[in-house]
Amino acid sequence: MGSRPLDVPTSPRALDYPAGVSTQNLTDAAPAEQTHWVLTLSCPDGPGIVHAVAGLLAEHGGNITESQQFGDPETQLFFMRVQALSTASREELVAAIEPVAARFSMTWNLDVVGRRMRTLVLVSKAAHCLNDLLFRERAGDLPVDVVAVAGNHTDLAPLAAFYGKGFHHVPVTKETKAAAEAQLLDLVTRMDIELVVLARYMQVLSDDMCRELEGRVINIHHSFLPSFKGAKPYHQAHDRGVKLIGATSHYVTGDLDEGPIIEQDVERVDHSHSTDRLVALGQDVERRVLGRAVRWHSEHRVLRNGHRTVIFR
Amino acid sequence: MGSRPLDVPTSPRALDYPAGVSTQNLTDAAPAEQTHWVLTLSCPDGPGIVHAVAGLLAEHGGNITESQQFGDPETQLFFMRVQALSTASREELVAAIEPVAARFSMTWNLDVVGRRMRTLVLVSKAAHCLNDLLFRERAGDLPVDVVAVAGNHTDLAPLAAFYGKGFHHVPVTKETKAAAEAQLLDLVTRMDIELVVLARYMQVLSDDMCRELEGRVINIHHSFLPSFKGAKPYHQAHDRGVKLIGATSHYVTGDLDEGPIIEQDVERVDHSHSTDRLVALGQDVERRVLGRAVRWHSEHRVLRNGHRTVIFR
Amino acid sequence: MGSRPLDVPTSPRALDYPAGVSTQNLTDAAPAEQTHWVLTLSCPDGPGIVHAVAGLLAEHGGNITESQQFGDPETQLFFMRVQALSTASREELVAAIEPVAARFSMTWNLDVVGRRMRTLVLVSKAAHCLNDLLFRERAGDLPVDVVAVAGNHTDLAPLAAFYGKGFHHVPVTKETKAAAEAQLLDLVTRMDIELVVLARYMQVLSDDMCRELEGRVINIHHSFLPSFKGAKPYHQAHDRGVKLIGATSHYVTGDLDEGPIIEQDVERVDHSHSTDRLVALGQDVERRVLGRAVRWHSEHRVLRNGHRTVIFR
Amino acid sequence: MGSRPLDVPTSPRALDYPAGVSTQNLTDAAPAEQTHWVLTLSCPDGPGIVHAVAGLLAEHGGNITESQQFGDPETQLFFMRVQALSTASREELVAAIEPVAARFSMTWNLDVVGRRMRTLVLVSKAAHCLNDLLFRERAGDLPVDVVAVAGNHTDLAPLAAFYGKGFHHVPVTKETKAAAEAQLLDLVTRMDIELVVLARYMQVLSDDMCRELEGRVINIHHSFLPSFKGAKPYHQAHDRGVKLIGATSHYVTGDLDEGPIIEQDVERVDHSHSTDRLVALGQDVERRVLGRAVRWHSEHRVLRNGHRTVIFR
Repeated sequence: MGSRPLDVPTSPRALDYPAGVSTQNLTDAAPAEQTHWVLTLSCPDGPGIVHAVAGLLAEHGGNITESQQFGDPETQLFFMRVQALSTASREELVAAIEPVAARFSMTWNLDVVGRRMRTLVLVSKAAHCLNDLLFRERAGDLPVDVVAVAGNHTDLAPLAAFYGKGFHHVPVTKETKAAAEAQLLDLVTRMDIELVVLARYMQVLSDDMCRELEGRVINIHHSFLPSFKGAKPYHQAHDRGVKLIGATSHYVTGDLDEGPIIEQDVERVDHSHSTDRLVALGQDVERRVLGRAVRWHSEHRVLRNGHRTVIFR
Repeated sequence: MGSRPLDVPTSPRALDYPAGVSTQNLTDAAPAEQTHWVLTLSCPDGPGIVHAVAGLLAEHGGNITESQQFGDPETQLFFMRVQALSTASREELVAAIEPVAARFSMTWNLDVVGRRMRTLVLVSKAAHCLNDLLFRERAGDLPVDVVAVAGNHTDLAPLAAFYGKGFHHVPVTKETKAAAEAQLLDLVTRMDIELVVLARYMQVLSDDMCRELEGRVINIHHSFLPSFKGAKPYHQAHDRGVKLIGATSHYVTGDLDEGPIIEQDVERVDHSHSTDRLVALGQDVERRVLGRAVRWHSEHRVLRNGHRTVIFR
Repeated sequence: MGSRPLDVPTSPRALDYPAGVSTQNLTDAAPAEQTHWVLTLSCPDGPGIVHAVAGLLAEHGGNITESQQFGDPETQLFFMRVQALSTASREELVAAIEPVAARFSMTWNLDVVGRRMRTLVLVSKAAHCLNDLLFRERAGDLPVDVVAVAGNHTDLAPLAAFYGKGFHHVPVTKETKAAAEAQLLDLVTRMDIELVVLARYMQVLSDDMCRELEGRVINIHHSFLPSFKGAKPYHQAHDRGVKLIGATSHYVTGDLDEGPIIEQDVERVDHSHSTDRLVALGQDVERRVLGRAVRWHSEHRVLRNGHRTVIFR
Repeated sequence: MGSRPLDVPTSPRALDYPAGVSTQNLTDAAPAEQTHWVLTLSCPDGPGIVHAVAGLLAEHGGNITESQQFGDPETQLFFMRVQALSTASREELVAAIEPVAARFSMTWNLDVVGRRMRTLVLVSKAAHCLNDLLFRERAGDLPVDVVAVAGNHTDLAPLAAFYGKGFHHVPVTKETKAAAEAQLLDLVTRMDIELVVLARYMQVLSDDMCRELEGRVINIHHSFLPSFKGAKPYHQAHDRGVKLIGATSHYVTGDLDEGPIIEQDVERVDHSHSTDRLVALGQDVERRVLGRAVRWHSEHRVLRNGHRTVIFR
C-alpha cells in the first residue's frame, strides 16, 4: 500500500496516551469531550485532496481550526497541515484516513495538538542551546518533553539536573564510536524518543545512525555569507570581515550539514568584534534558531519536500 | 441573502476582462484553457466549510494550488484563501459558490490570480513611495495597474509622466476640500478604480469619503515605540532618543491612522542620527512597508477580521 | 568644582580593587604591568577637548585602543569614551584627569576594562530575564557580578540558587512598600551595588528611590507600535492586530517608563498568534534587549545626554 | 616619504572646488567662514596619534564634531575618522597634517563633509540598483554626484535620461573587452571620476582594470547561507530551500567577489517563494545594501584594513 506514516513517526506508546487526553472517555455515553487533532500529509498533487480530507473530518464532526496547504509546482507534490476539534477517537479517525491516504498515496501523521514530543538532547560542552531548550520547556513555551540529556562530556550534567533531567554520559572516542552510538540508539528505543536534538553536540553521527533516525534528528550550526569550510569558521569569518553571522537548523541526513533546512537567522556584527565576541553572538543566533526549529517540528509544522522543507507557521 | 462580495469588491469591468484571460474562450469547444482562480471568503466558523468549498472546486475540476485557512477562536470567524486551476468559467464558478456562500453566510470574492488591480495613487510632494510603487509595477513585481496618479501638488507630475501615468492635479484647501474629494471620487468611478493608495498624501480624507471607499484605501504612516501624538513626530522621536523608527500600513477608516493594520516594520537608528536622517531612514521603511501592503492586498492575501486583518502570505 | 564623576558612580570599594588587577603592583620597580582603562566623559562642546584628553593619556604612556566621540549639535554637549592601555596607577591618572576635567567642566568616570560591575537583580515571578542574565554572566558573556537577587515573591529563589546567588525575599504590600524599599536600599549600600536591574520586577519604585539610585537602575518593558496605555498591553496589542511586538530597556527615573532609552528591538507576529504566544515572543525580545542594555551599561558604553542616551557600541 | 593619500584619492579638481565652499574666501579679511572637514587616516598603532591629530586640529581652531577611532589588536593598525569645523584653508590643514602623517607613517585623506563624490555607475539591464541610486541622489539622501551612467546594453538609457544623466553605451564582447575597458577608463579620467559603482553590471572587470581603480570600485552581489558557486545561484538557493537570501557589497579587487566587504543584509523567504520571487526579493536586498555601501564610502566612513574594512558609521 502506498500509504504510510509521515516522515517523523511518533511512537505507539506516546500516541496511545496523549498528554491530558483520555481516549477511553471519548467512547463513553457522557457528553463527549473534544480532542484537538493535528493531521499532516503529503502526496502527489491532484484534484480532490482537500475535499476528501475535509470530508472525512466533517463526517467525524471535526471542526477545522487551522489549515494550510501548499502545492509545489516543481515537484508536483501537495502538502497539508490541518488542525480540527473532534469527539472521534483516534481509531475512528485512522479508519477514516486510511482509505483516503491509500487513494491519494499519502504519507501522513495524526497527533494531538500540544502533545509534548518525547525528546532526547545530545550535548558536548557548550551550554547555550541546552539551557535555552530546558528553560523554554519549563516555561511551557515549547511542546517537548525532554526525557533525557546525553553528553560525550559531563560539563552539562548539573544544568540537566537543575531541570530534573537524567544525564547520560556517553563518551566517544574513535575506538568507541560504534559502541557509543549503539548506546544512544538504545536510549532512543527504550525511552520511546521521537526527536533527537543535537544541541551543539560536537560529534558527527555515522551514516548508519543518520539513516536509522532519518527525519527525527535536528541539528544547529553556524552559517555565514559567504560560508566557510574547514576548521575555526568564526576565525575565518572574522578574518574575512563579514558583517553578518548566522545559524542554520536542519534535519540530519548522511550528508553532513546539508540536510533539509528548517530555519536560519543572522545577527549583525562589525569590525570591532573580536573572534570571541563573534562566537558569543553566534551562540545567541544558534539558540534562537534551534528553539524555533524544535518548536515547529514538535508542532508538526515542518514537512519534508525532498531535500527541502515546507514550514506551515 | 447573507452572501455578499468580500470587503474589496472588484469592479465589474475589471473582472469581465481579466488580464490575459479571454473568458469567451473558456466555453469554446476547443480544449479548454485553465484559469488560475483565487477565492477568498470569511464566515462564522463551523464544521464543513472547507469541505464544501473544496467540494465545489472539485466538481468544477479545480486543482487547488495554494490554500490557507484561519479560524479565530475569539471572534469565532473563519477565513479562507484558496487558489485553484480550473477550466470552469467565472459564471459557472459563481453559480457554484453562491449556494455555499448563502448556507454559511459567507462574505466572498473571486478573482483571477495575477490580475493587476486598477489602482489610483494619491500623492503630495514626497516622492519615495510613488517612485517605489511605479518602479515595482514596471518591474513586474507588483500586480497593480496604476491607472493614474493624483496629487494636491504638482511636484510629482514628472515622475508620473516618466512611467507613462496620467497626473491629475487636485489642489485642496479648506474651502475646496469637498469639491476636491468629489473630483477624486469621480476619478475612482470613471476609471473603475479598485484600490486607492495614499502614498504620503498629506490630506485627511473626510468621513464620508472613508465610508464610500471603505476597505479600498491603503495608507502608510510612520510609527514609533512609544508612539508620538501631534505634529513633527520625527522631531519628537529624535528628542526622545528612540533606537528604532518604524512605519505602519493600514486600511483607512473614519478613525484616523487607526484602521486595520496590514504591515509594520522598523529600522534601527542611533544617537548620531539627526532628525533629517531619521526622516530619510523613515522613508526607507515607509516605502518598504507600503510596497508589501499593496502586494498582499492586490494578491487578495489580506482579509478583514473586524478591526484586525488576517494575512495569508 | 565643575568636575564630578559621571552619571553612574562606581563604589569606592569596587574601584579600589578592580577584578584581576592589583594596583599595588603598578608602582613597583618590577617591569610595570599595563592596565586597560576606560574613561568616559561629557562636557560642553568646544575646541581642544580631544587634544587635552589624548594628551594626558599620552603623558602617562597610554596607548589608546578604542575611542569614540560625539558632539551633539543640539545640546552642544560633547561625549567621549576612550580605552587605553597604561602602566599608570589609578591615582596618577585621576591626578592627571582632574585639572582637564575642571577646565572643561567635565562629568567623567574612570574604570578598568572588563571589571565586573556589582549588580543586584530585582525580580517578581517571571523567570526569563533573570535566567538570561545569570546564564550570560556564567558564560563569561556579560561583565557583571550579580551579587544577589531580590524578589517580592520567592518563585525564582531556586533559579538564583542554581547559579549560586543569594536570594532575598522582600515582599511588598501597600503598607510595607516604604519598609521594603528601605530594605532594598540597605542591600544596595551594604553590598556596594553599582547597578540594579529590574528583571520584570512588577513593582513601581517610589520617586525617592528613583532619585536615590538615579542612573543606576535599568528596567525592561514591552513596547508596541502604536503603544498602549493601561493594563494588559499584550491583550490590547492582540486586539489591535499589530504585526510587531517590541521591548524597550531604559534607565529608571521618577517618570515611569519614560527614562532615557538604552535599547529597543522588535519581533514579528501575525494574526495566528494568541495573546499567550504574543507574551512568550515578547519575553524573547525582553530578555534580548535587557541583555544588551546591561552589557553596554556595564562596559560604560552608555552616556546620558539629558533624557536621551549616547551609545558607544 | 611614508605618508600618502588614503585608499581612495579624490581628484585634484574635485577637491579644489568643493561643493558650496569657496576656498578663496577662506583667506579673505572678511569674517572667516567655517568649513566642515573630514579627515580619515590609518597607520601602525602606537601612543600619541590621537593627541597629535587633535593637536593639529586645535591649532587651526578646529572644533571636532564627530570622531571615531579603532585599533585593531591583530594587525596592530590604527584607524581614525574625524570631522572638524575650522576656518583654516585646505592648504593650511595639509601643511599641518603632513609632518604628523610622516611621523606616524599615515595613509590619510582630507575632504569637505557633504561634498558629493563624482561617481560613474556601470549597468547592464537590471534597473533596481540604478533606480535606487539616482532616486536617492535626487532626494538629497546620498552625497554622490552621478556624473554619468555607462552600460553594455541600452536598456537603462531612458532611466538615466529621466534623471538628467548622460548615458554611454559601451558594448562588451570577448573581442572588444579590452577596448571597452579602455573606453571606461577614459571616461573615469576625463570626468574626474572618484567612485565607480557596479550596479548589477554583468561584466567581470579585468585584473588590470581592477588594479587601476583599486579601492574606487564598489560592487553588489547576492549572498546566501550557505553560499552557492556557479551559475543561477537563486535557482540553487531555491533548490536548497534556504530561509534567508542576502546581498553583499564589497570593493572590487582582482579576486572576483572576494574583495573587502562593506555591507551585508538578508531578507526572509519561505517554501512558497518561487525562484522568480526570490530574485525579486533579492533585488530589494541588493539595492538596500548597495545604497548603504555607497553612502558610507562617499562619506569617508569606510577604511581599508587589509582585506577587511573598518566602518565608522
